Amino acid sequence: MTHSEDRSQRGADLMRHIHAEWGTPNVLGPLEGIAPDLKGLVRDFAFGDIYSRPGLDLKSRQLVTVAALAAMHNSPLELKAHLFGALKLGWKKEELVEALMQIALYAGFPAAMAALMIARDVFAEWDKMSKPVAGPA
Amino acid sequence: MTHSEDRSQRGADLMRHIHAEWGTPNVLGPLEGIAPDLKGLVRDFAFGDIYSRPGLDLKSRQLVTVAALAAMHNSPLELKAHLFGALKLGWKKEELVEALMQIALYAGFPAAMAALMIARDVFAEWDKMSKPVAGPA
Amino acid sequence: MTHSEDRSQRGADLMRHIHAEWGTPNVLGPLEGIAPDLKGLVRDFAFGDIYSRPGLDLKSRQLVTVAALAAMHNSPLELKAHLFGALKLGWKKEELVEALMQIALYAGFPAAMAALMIARDVFAEWDKMSKPVAGPA
Amino acid sequence: MTHSEDRSQRGADLMRHIHAEWGTPNVLGPLEGIAPDLKGLVRDFAFGDIYSRPGLDLKSRQLVTVAALAAMHNSPLELKAHLFGALKLGWKKEELVEALMQIALYAGFPAAMAALMIARDVFAEWDKMSKPVAGPA
Amino acid sequence: MTHSEDRSQRGADLMRHIHAEWGTPNVLGPLEGIAPDLKGLVRDFAFGDIYSRPGLDLKSRQLVTVAALAAMHNSPLELKAHLFGALKLGWKKEELVEALMQIALYAGFPAAMAALMIARDVFAEWDKMSKPVAGPA
Amino acid sequence: MTHSEDRSQRGADLMRHIHAEWGTPNVLGPLEGIAPDLKGLVRDFAFGDIYSRPGLDLKSRQLVTVAALAAMHNSPLELKAHLFGALKLGWKKEELVEALMQIALYAGFPAAMAALMIARDVFAEWDKMSKPVAGPA
Repeated sequence: MTHSEDRSQRGADLMRHIHAEWGTPNVLGPLEGIAPDLKGLVRDFAFGDIYSRPGLDLKSRQLVTVAALAAMHNSPLELKAHLFGALKLGWKKEELVEALMQIALYAGFPAAMAALMIARDVFAEWDKMSKPVAGPA
Repeated sequence: MTHSEDRSQRGADLMRHIHAEWGTPNVLGPLEGIAPDLKGLVRDFAFGDIYSRPGLDLKSRQLVTVAALAAMHNSPLELKAHLFGALKLGWKKEELVEALMQIALYAGFPAAMAALMIARDVFAEWDKMSKPVAGPA
Repeated sequence: MTHSEDRSQRGADLMRHIHAEWGTPNVLGPLEGIAPDLKGLVRDFAFGDIYSRPGLDLKSRQLVTVAALAAMHNSPLELKAHLFGALKLGWKKEELVEALMQIALYAGFPAAMAALMIARDVFAEWDKMSKPVAGPA
Repeated sequence: MTHSEDRSQRGADLMRHIHAEWGTPNVLGPLEGIAPDLKGLVRDFAFGDIYSRPGLDLKSRQLVTVAALAAMHNSPLELKAHLFGALKLGWKKEELVEALMQIALYAGFPAAMAALMIARDVFAEWDKMSKPVAGPA
Repeated sequence: MTHSEDRSQRGADLMRHIHAEWGTPNVLGPLEGIAPDLKGLVRDFAFGDIYSRPGLDLKSRQLVTVAALAAMHNSPLELKAHLFGALKLGWKKEELVEALMQIALYAGFPAAMAALMIARDVFAEWDKMSKPVAGPA
Repeated sequence: MTHSEDRSQRGADLMRHIHAEWGTPNVLGPLEGIAPDLKGLVRDFAFGDIYSRPGLDLKSRQLVTVAALAAMHNSPLELKAHLFGALKLGWKKEELVEALMQIALYAGFPAAMAALMIARDVFAEWDKMSKPVAGPA
């Protein structure tokens, strides 16, 4: 296996691990109709090259991304996807709410409040997805 | 003690714990000549009300701040102060470098590179401050 | 009354004065389901500590906020709320339109045009809210 | 004809040339209800004074605008209008997709992906508008 | 006099009134070596077309500009020039400090603190420029 | 040669072609002391994967980058490097000045003026670098 196949494989595995349920279908899916190569570039570079580097654990990396997107305050779709990813990797809802409230100090209250509104939607969808279907008694 | 004194005290303690060596003198110090009340408001609100909330540990909070400031890419002084704070709270240099590299994905390469240049300066100052003074033989 | 109760009371009074009809229900209301404490922090800090400071009259403060939000060009909900507040505090529609047009010079035409589209909606709602109900002849 | 009429005329001609089918009705049209003078100022200044300057050909100017709007990542309506304009002036779809993918390097992946989603919509509308109506056999 | 000469004259007069001592020499002066036409376009459009419109008094316009530039947090030279202009048009130092502190709520503390550091420099230069030369006893 | 060596080689060749004289030493050079891997990732991804894609000619790509960086108005070092690159790839000074003036429409005058000040420095350095050393008569 060449190094190049390696990073694609590593990226695909990591993307599936974090984003299979929400992020990949919703963020990268629509690229197929307009810039299909970008999907592969994100997989290889973002996930195969960056997220999979040693030196910082994956759970902390996800918090970095959530904080960055909330502070930039212009990418609701990506913030939604990465909040799903953060729950998937083990961050508790309360911890994420605290992280987003703290964004107010650096990016202002509107950024923090917009991020919290997105979190509210994510948490509601998460609860619905996680809820075991009640079987017959 | 009223609740109000409480948050000022709590804020002052926390600010001293994270920022006494670099952040407070360099970021809040110069406010005294122009907006002296703002120093107290930052202490009470940012540190007394927000950073000291339970629900997210202080070390993770510091990573949120570093990521937010790096992504916003317009506050070099505050990023410097909070990178010092991050080292103070136990983040390793390598972990912070990884966090800042990851910013490239969301805010572009120039944001990540500017943040890494600031980290280089912070790490050099940190090493100098941490070095024990050599005593006489 | 402790100082802390004081600022909460002062903040609540001021928020009600400016934002009771539109801003508070629409901007802060939805926080209750996700970050209920943030509502109190905004009331105490933003309104109790900052907006209520002497040194700048409230009407001028409202113009500062409208200009800041229009220039940042990423917080339509807050801009809408503060345009309502600006009308409430006595700014004329024509004055607000001029302020928003001027934003084009510093933040570009798209920022000014987006803000003006929000103003159009606000003015229409305002006129509807202000219109006395016609009684029987 | 005074110089002032000159720039209005030049601006109007240029705006019609690039934006008559999509940009003018959708971006500047709604201004009429709130800031009617701004429409004339955009025509005279943006198109009469800036776009019509010699020194850079119009097709390159349009690429500058598309790149700027995509990188700023906060003006979807204007980006849509200028992508239409770019097709009108002869840029190929594939070239525009490449330009937008490249934005990822400087403004991050979310900016590039949002711009590409807008391009997808523009290209679909463009194809529909360009399609000759099939006549009877 | 054609309308076009009119707006140039009106713009030149207004620019001189607000910015002759600091803004014009420091902000527009350096354009001469690289984009000499831009100086005229700013005079005609920004000052001749926008600032000189009726509908909002000049002093309020200056506050709009200061707030916008402080919130955008990326144009220290222009913010400096417009803080000078604000003092020139009658805003008190204390009022400007309050306006800039308030920016923290919408654009974060780093934006407000950077603007206040610029105000500190402006106020010091202003005091030196305003001081009457002491005559002989 | 594996595909991976391919993109590294292709990226290195392209970087050298555009940025060897100014960009690489000044922008990527300093990364070596803090994040040495990032230099390789920029070479492979930015230049090997993106800039070297077919579908848009290199000269147009460089204009996209200049416009994006000028509009973002927060990356003077990168803008400087890419203005050098733009001259290297055949853009005329006058064309670049026009492109940067146009940025005022979308990102405001301060962004355009800051970019033009950077262009002034770049053009001066470029003229000095390009001037043949006068030999003895």
